[in-house]
Amino acid sequence: MPKVSEDHLAARRSQILDGARRCFAEYGYDGATVRRLEEATGLSRGAIFHHFKDKDGLFLALAHEDARRMADVVAEGGLVQVMRDMLASPQDFDWLGTRLEIARRLRTDPEFRRSWSQRSAELTDATIARLAAQKEADRLRDDVPTDVLVEYLDLVLDGLIARLAAGNASSDLSAVLDLVENSVRRRD
Amino acid sequence: MPKVSEDHLAARRSQILDGARRCFAEYGYDGATVRRLEEATGLSRGAIFHHFKDKDGLFLALAHEDARRMADVVAEGGLVQVMRDMLASPQDFDWLGTRLEIARRLRTDPEFRRSWSQRSAELTDATIARLAAQKEADRLRDDVPTDVLVEYLDLVLDGLIARLAAGNASSDLSAVLDLVENSVRRRD
Repeated sequence: MPKVSEDHLAARRSQILDGARRCFAEYGYDGATVRRLEEATGLSRGAIFHHFKDKDGLFLALAHEDARRMADVVAEGGLVQVMRDMLASPQDFDWLGTRLEIARRLRTDPEFRRSWSQRSAELTDATIARLAAQKEADRLRDDVPTDVLVEYLDLVLDGLIARLAAGNASSDLSAVLDLVENSVRRRD
Repeated sequence: MPKVSEDHLAARRSQILDGARRCFAEYGYDGATVRRLEEATGLSRGAIFHHFKDKDGLFLALAHEDARRMADVVAEGGLVQVMRDMLASPQDFDWLGTRLEIARRLRTDPEFRRSWSQRSAELTDATIARLAAQKEADRLRDDVPTDVLVEYLDLVLDGLIARLAAGNASSDLSAVLDLVENSVRRRD
């Protein structure tokens, strides 16, 4: 395939994802109808679903995009840095509330759950790698297994996403994140 | 009002709440239609809405019931104990996923948000009282303000609710809760 065409496809895909993200953020999962997705992306349903199988496909692609962006931040500054970024610019994470709306499907639809896990694996892997490096550098507490620390940070992230979705993430949470960061660190 | 009648009203009210809780757990907030609420409670819509103004009223009454039950556990054993109970019997907390589905409304509907806060105040107050008592007894860490500790525990609770709703609360989380409990305690 010639380079120009690839660039064009990537740009189109990115245009769709940006529009879909805004649409999910504004209307929620169920409220993001095909008509609204068309409006938000400025493209026809034919064009949208040429790139993505269906609404689930769009949603999972956005989740994957998130996981990749967050994984990059994790590699540089850890999962608490991801949370600090969310707290600093909640408006950039508007769409995350959509995740809560699909919780029921994660519980009841094994196929959807599997797809979702695949899309989030990159973030989990990055967190595990980051903690392993921190442990190597003797900055991690050593009285708790690393996988427990990963689960812990992930649980706090889920809490923060719930708060942001409810519009209830005050700046006080910054001190809470200090505490969280502190509680995975080695105590001198 | 004669005693018998009061007992009867309380029993009816409790019958409605139990049915509504099951109905929300099974179908979610939007899916809990009036017809399904009738089936789940075994009562007519007339009877149901004689006791509760509307579906929001039912939902908020359930939230209040939860807050009261949790506040009792908090007074005895703290907020982490509430979380341990959830983890031990996730099936008893099925309905909590419904909380996630209303996150958007909490963010966008100030009146609903106000009602919700009122219903949850008892739990927050119980947590504050519990931490104050723990501090008095010198069991609480003293390098972090108590209100930050309250926010912290509350954030972890939100994370756990999200996990339970997604059917993703493995027993590994028990070790995570140990870590959480430990991180609000005084270090000897």
